[in-house]
Amino acid sequence: MSQPYTPTPRTRLVREADRAVYDREAAYRILDEGFLCHVGFVLDGQPFVIPTSYGRKGDSLFIHGSAASRMLRQAKEGVPVCITVTLLDGLVLARSIFNHSMNYRSVVVLGKATLVDDPAEKIEALRLLSEHIIPGRWADSRQPNERELKATSILRVPIKEFSAKVRKGPVVDDEEDYSFPTWAGVVPLEVVAGEPVDDARLVPGQDVPAYAKRYVRKR
Amino acid sequence: MSQPYTPTPRTRLVREADRAVYDREAAYRILDEGFLCHVGFVLDGQPFVIPTSYGRKGDSLFIHGSAASRMLRQAKEGVPVCITVTLLDGLVLARSIFNHSMNYRSVVVLGKATLVDDPAEKIEALRLLSEHIIPGRWADSRQPNERELKATSILRVPIKEFSAKVRKGPVVDDEEDYSFPTWAGVVPLEVVAGEPVDDARLVPGQDVPAYAKRYVRKR
Repeated sequence: MSQPYTPTPRTRLVREADRAVYDREAAYRILDEGFLCHVGFVLDGQPFVIPTSYGRKGDSLFIHGSAASRMLRQAKEGVPVCITVTLLDGLVLARSIFNHSMNYRSVVVLGKATLVDDPAEKIEALRLLSEHIIPGRWADSRQPNERELKATSILRVPIKEFSAKVRKGPVVDDEEDYSFPTWAGVVPLEVVAGEPVDDARLVPGQDVPAYAKRYVRKR
Repeated sequence: MSQPYTPTPRTRLVREADRAVYDREAAYRILDEGFLCHVGFVLDGQPFVIPTSYGRKGDSLFIHGSAASRMLRQAKEGVPVCITVTLLDGLVLARSIFNHSMNYRSVVVLGKATLVDDPAEKIEALRLLSEHIIPGRWADSRQPNERELKATSILRVPIKEFSAKVRKGPVVDDEEDYSFPTWAGVVPLEVVAGEPVDDARLVPGQDVPAYAKRYVRKR
């Protein structure tokens, strides 16, 4: 089932190598549970990191335009980016400060971002993004018109070079610390959706759709 | 109360400039509510973005070592970094796809990261980081020893150049779309802590401390 993947020197984890996950399917499960990424790019030697939403189709990530605006001023044949997705699962409170940690799952993708130019591909990428964030919403919305499509920029980043890192499970303390008299354990953390808030100008008879009422990310 | 701050050309927001926040105190409130940042740095022209925890003291951010390992191989007199903190508050489901958005608060800090070398400063930075993530935990933990201090690297990044961006409140649709027959509104999102999980090897009589039982980030 799982596709083998050999990390490059740029994506091979050196620190905490035991947390490394080089399995493409495992990385895709992380990418599919998240929808907010942090995109890194370089301008005049200065790194910039911008939060934005993303979607995935096969071995490509698609990210939304506004975050890309600085990048797009650069060469259109592709700019080096790093897309990082992090899911935070808990605080790990060890007995020693040194062994405190977090439970998390993260994926780092290195690649060249290119503009999606073709209008049909662009609308398909927008649909992907929308369905990635909240499945079912696309069909219920007023579709993009020509002017809006022109005002939107979408970037594609192939998922070739990547690494994933996962820390899960209980505290790991040094053996001699287990007798230290303090509480230790894990505080689970989760992103939870609250009750949807109706817009003040709803057309009468529009109920909250199921995808908004029971919004969950875990698949 | 609030310190004036003039954005530089690198931090002045061009897109969605109405969402810009150049108020240092407002930015610090965001930095103080979050504890996970995404650090960007450059190696051989390639941007890298790594998640890590941080703490703030006055006009400086401190970030933890492991994420910095790649950076530290570079010049020790300071490497250009970008530290971005994003708090996600909700999905904004507009009538048109184009006006879909997210409610969020984010801060971008550009600066040069330097190593904290002095052992006393290092332990103070570690305390800051710990208290930033979970106040009260430091005093309950086995303190770092000399070996652990040496194995930990901490970076300081002065908060000089920064920008913050905030989107909050309801859907904003184009006037002609308000009659479009679909539900619209906001799905609030929040990071919520679950019931703490005891470590399997607890010393008897160690109850879950209040800071872990009622863990909240909103101040």
